[in-house]
Amino acid sequence: MKKFNTSPISGMQELTPAMQAEFNRLKSGITAAYAQHGFQSIETPTIDRTEILLAKAGGDTEKQIYKVVKTAETANDADQALRFDHTVPLARYTVEHANDLTFPFKVTQIGRNFRGERAQKGRFREFYQCDVDVIGWNTLPVAYDAEVIATLVDALKVLPLPSFVVRVSNRKLLSGLLQALNLNHLSAEIFNIVDHAEKVPPEKTVEALQDLGLGTENVVKITTFMQIHGDYTEVVPKLRDLGCQDATFLEGVEELDIVLKTVQELSATTEVIADMMIVRGLDYYTGTVFETIAPDYREFGSICSGGRYENLANHYTDQALPGVGGSIGLTRLFAAFVDAGLAKASESKPVDVCLLPISSNEYQACAKFATDLRAEGKTVDLVLTEKKLGDKMKYASKVAQFAAVIGETEAASGHYKLRNLKTGAEIEK
Amino acid sequence: MKKFNTSPISGMQELTPAMQAEFNRLKSGITAAYAQHGFQSIETPTIDRTEILLAKAGGDTEKQIYKVVKTAETANDADQALRFDHTVPLARYTVEHANDLTFPFKVTQIGRNFRGERAQKGRFREFYQCDVDVIGWNTLPVAYDAEVIATLVDALKVLPLPSFVVRVSNRKLLSGLLQALNLNHLSAEIFNIVDHAEKVPPEKTVEALQDLGLGTENVVKITTFMQIHGDYTEVVPKLRDLGCQDATFLEGVEELDIVLKTVQELSATTEVIADMMIVRGLDYYTGTVFETIAPDYREFGSICSGGRYENLANHYTDQALPGVGGSIGLTRLFAAFVDAGLAKASESKPVDVCLLPISSNEYQACAKFATDLRAEGKTVDLVLTEKKLGDKMKYASKVAQFAAVIGETEAASGHYKLRNLKTGAEIEK
Repeated sequence: MKKFNTSPISGMQELTPAMQAEFNRLKSGITAAYAQHGFQSIETPTIDRTEILLAKAGGDTEKQIYKVVKTAETANDADQALRFDHTVPLARYTVEHANDLTFPFKVTQIGRNFRGERAQKGRFREFYQCDVDVIGWNTLPVAYDAEVIATLVDALKVLPLPSFVVRVSNRKLLSGLLQALNLNHLSAEIFNIVDHAEKVPPEKTVEALQDLGLGTENVVKITTFMQIHGDYTEVVPKLRDLGCQDATFLEGVEELDIVLKTVQELSATTEVIADMMIVRGLDYYTGTVFETIAPDYREFGSICSGGRYENLANHYTDQALPGVGGSIGLTRLFAAFVDAGLAKASESKPVDVCLLPISSNEYQACAKFATDLRAEGKTVDLVLTEKKLGDKMKYASKVAQFAAVIGETEAASGHYKLRNLKTGAEIEK
Repeated sequence: MKKFNTSPISGMQELTPAMQAEFNRLKSGITAAYAQHGFQSIETPTIDRTEILLAKAGGDTEKQIYKVVKTAETANDADQALRFDHTVPLARYTVEHANDLTFPFKVTQIGRNFRGERAQKGRFREFYQCDVDVIGWNTLPVAYDAEVIATLVDALKVLPLPSFVVRVSNRKLLSGLLQALNLNHLSAEIFNIVDHAEKVPPEKTVEALQDLGLGTENVVKITTFMQIHGDYTEVVPKLRDLGCQDATFLEGVEELDIVLKTVQELSATTEVIADMMIVRGLDYYTGTVFETIAPDYREFGSICSGGRYENLANHYTDQALPGVGGSIGLTRLFAAFVDAGLAKASESKPVDVCLLPISSNEYQACAKFATDLRAEGKTVDLVLTEKKLGDKMKYASKVAQFAAVIGETEAASGHYKLRNLKTGAEIEK
């Protein structure tokens, strides 16, 4: 019957209507959680100038960016590409519209981004990111790092996860420790080793550190640091006990203390802990960093991550715009939920009530009933096919929760029976 | 201060947060109207195979399509491009997922499409289309044409327009008339002249028809036909009075009669009339066609249009999938609303309540108050800046409707005053 390959391109998520309804329910829940915390919604264009998108990118990003071919009618434009995240367009947006914004600018972007990656399970080339950010004008108190985490905790509660743990650290801690140990010159390598430590056996991490020629004493100091984790009331004293007097390190302790204390005050949550294993690969982050795991589903990887950045838009402006943000990668997560049986095609039918006119003589009565039901907030479908009643009922049972057959009597009386298509129970209307 | 051009690419709509809130309000209203009529939401990928997208396109579409450059990691993929409408991906989707769908398939797609057109006022290269379609399996009664129109009428009522008129016709009428006049061979030219008749003075239309060498009698017959419009109770008799006995023409009269009668029954609307001037340029449509104007804002052009197509996906499958659909081009319309003063930056502040802790000692109390307010459905922002109270209040007055200062007393008592930032009135909480 098919004359063409009609599958979507590899790496694209395309859902059946029932699955889409479930995806939309999660997306709406996240959107509502962000809005309830006072984040304002914006949308940036999918296509932007390549020079903007790549101003500070490099490496994989540059390789994976989808460039767009100019058409005959846009030939004079600058080179263009598809956005690969929300942060770069947000930087451009904040500089462009600064006069129309109120700072601290609490902003959310929920939309699709694009990366031309090799096709593989769990990786998508087009994917929803659900971002929140707070951007300060010149300064931004670290308490906002806590507010971003508290907001994300509320959003994550929408997801069908039995539990999750947000693991928080501060990059100033490891930076300061390395400064104190005179290991600054190996900072990139050591951050990388710590970032990957959970993916390899512990002895591999020790080996990798030793291979850098740090000396046993330094390796012990770093691995001891890495193992610190837990409730902030225990972690902060343990960090102080390390005895490191580097100013950056002490600033990190102070910030982590405020962030974790404020998260508890704002969110009274048991889901947030401190964990020195978290450093985040991106050198973009400068202070607070966090990742989130689902203890029962560690294979999902980080389900929500983010951190503090010193300067959102230093490539575009001299104005200091410090910020903090986090993101939920909903497309990837949804696929993981489906695989794990945590997300199912929505069982709630798309339609509350299906009205089945016996013939076109009853359309007008059906329309009146539909208008009344919609005014009550119900979704209503009219079956206008010229089929037998049995076939109409078969359709109704697939799409709707309730059905009502409308014939001459119902049309004349204005009364009808709503039948629950699951239980068979009837309601008089 | 700027080091870069940070404006979005020409032809892209980028809104301030207050304008975005207004745009989102309209989009949500349309989404809700479609859902209330039982249309199920789907999303198709932004990027698709060029051979799919261009299977039946041609002309302008082919020139304006944005092709995507493959990355090193997607180099083995088929050629790809950005979707330029929702209909082509819907055709692919319906064939691909046919086994998971219930027919008639009532479907809505609300998302961004892309056309690389020359930059000009009122034209966008990235734009939201809000589509509804009903797809039948083998057959689809014309009553569904009426349901699509009734649904769109409900959606259009969400828009800030003082009034609108949906003008309906059926392409079988003019086709049949031309067959009866033996003018079949000039069908494309004549459809084109009728389609453009409202953009030129009437004598130009007559001239253009005469230039085709039709003869005066035929020109009069066509212009007489074109001028028929009004309530369907008057239009259908007028069409019959033309005396055309062509089978296609009579089928068109019959269908128009049912569609308009059913629209009245379903929607009891005064906004829908018959108008033979409407033919729709696209040869894609085969029966019912409609366009919508705002009488007070004719410069907006058609604000919503659509029609019946014989076969959604004949390029991809042998299965007959007749359908009917319509679309609201929200991005273009929103820009027109703003220009005409019909859409303004949302006056409702993004935040219901701003809580202003005097110091970090009150964070915990504020968080408790915020949780309670959010449980009531309120959006709540906590001001965590380390500024003077006056500065915090200035921020609150920009983003919020109500503010409450939370100091030691409020934290201890659990009671505080919500101040209306517009009227100054206070509510005890």
